[in-house]
Amino acid sequence: MYRLYDFLPSGNGYKVRLLLTQLAIPFELVLLDITKGETRTPEFLAKNANGRIPLLEVETDVYLAESNAILMYLSEGTAFLPQDRLAKARVWQWLFFEQYSHEPNIATSRFWLTHGMGAEKQQALADKQAPGYAALQVMENRLTDHPFLVEDRYTIADIALYAYTHVAEEGNFSLGNYPQVRAWLNRVSGQPNHVPITQSGFGP
Amino acid sequence: MYRLYDFLPSGNGYKVRLLLTQLAIPFELVLLDITKGETRTPEFLAKNANGRIPLLEVETDVYLAESNAILMYLSEGTAFLPQDRLAKARVWQWLFFEQYSHEPNIATSRFWLTHGMGAEKQQALADKQAPGYAALQVMENRLTDHPFLVEDRYTIADIALYAYTHVAEEGNFSLGNYPQVRAWLNRVSGQPNHVPITQSGFGP
Repeated sequence: MYRLYDFLPSGNGYKVRLLLTQLAIPFELVLLDITKGETRTPEFLAKNANGRIPLLEVETDVYLAESNAILMYLSEGTAFLPQDRLAKARVWQWLFFEQYSHEPNIATSRFWLTHGMGAEKQQALADKQAPGYAALQVMENRLTDHPFLVEDRYTIADIALYAYTHVAEEGNFSLGNYPQVRAWLNRVSGQPNHVPITQSGFGP
Repeated sequence: MYRLYDFLPSGNGYKVRLLLTQLAIPFELVLLDITKGETRTPEFLAKNANGRIPLLEVETDVYLAESNAILMYLSEGTAFLPQDRLAKARVWQWLFFEQYSHEPNIATSRFWLTHGMGAEKQQALADKQAPGYAALQVMENRLTDHPFLVEDRYTIADIALYAYTHVAEEGNFSLGNYPQVRAWLNRVSGQPNHVPITQSGFGP
């Protein structure tokens, strides 16, 4: 059985929990508190030198890191990833967009605002507003003509972008001007076997 | 023939140029100056709503963005990507590591230092030193026991990480304490049909 090292408020971890649940794959959840340095211990760094969750233990002592790489690993050959070469590449495009243009702005703002931040972060927090809204606009443009991000059906691209978009307001990003994004959030949360961010279908 | 929208100093663009050259796939190069806003024109935004190069025109009016998604698209079924499911996932892991933990620190510092930056960026530049060096240390750890990043052979993971690591000093990152990384840079640049960053095997 897969073992997932995770932190429940993490959207990156949530992506993996959600996909595993929707694939009906049972997993053991090992919770670590990233705010207490539990992913920077020598024991954990031996598992993932980059010191981050989520980390999937694929088999005993075999680890896979990076949330979107885990999504790709788990979804190959399933209905959550298209077979067509170009459609699959478009899923990857959204996954890299998520990690480069969306997460560092929206998720990092949320982390600072919900877990505490020093005064020295105020300027950095303000600087994330424009690129974070730009990322939401890229999504809004796509979703104006399409129900989902790729191929008009629910894929891991939607899972990856949903994770932090649906809690964007916790990072001080309003979705008020993004009606297509809001409608898409409802379509994603209406998928079969959807679970919310702090729950796991198989965990505590 | 593929058409690549690119900016020659870009490491992200270089990844694609290098792989296309090593795959002996001819391509047309369309150069845009990102420092003059040439990727934020209405005409270019119609091609890529995220306003970034590299952008691959796969066929007429069909575009694929995100450098690492393009690498994955081009390398499937070639010697540059393993066939084994877990090895392939490890390649993806390094690609996401590159875009999340490496590029935003090392490449962004290089961009600011080589293309000019305002005084307001000084703190942000200083803040990138620690996470940038942490990323180099993750690479150093892996390369201590292995000649390449995945499966002991040259893959798109090496291409993706080489792009900005080999010019890290232009971002004020010294490789002095990373002997394994330096040796790996030489192994990468010694691969057949390697081309340097500002040249293209088929471009001007």
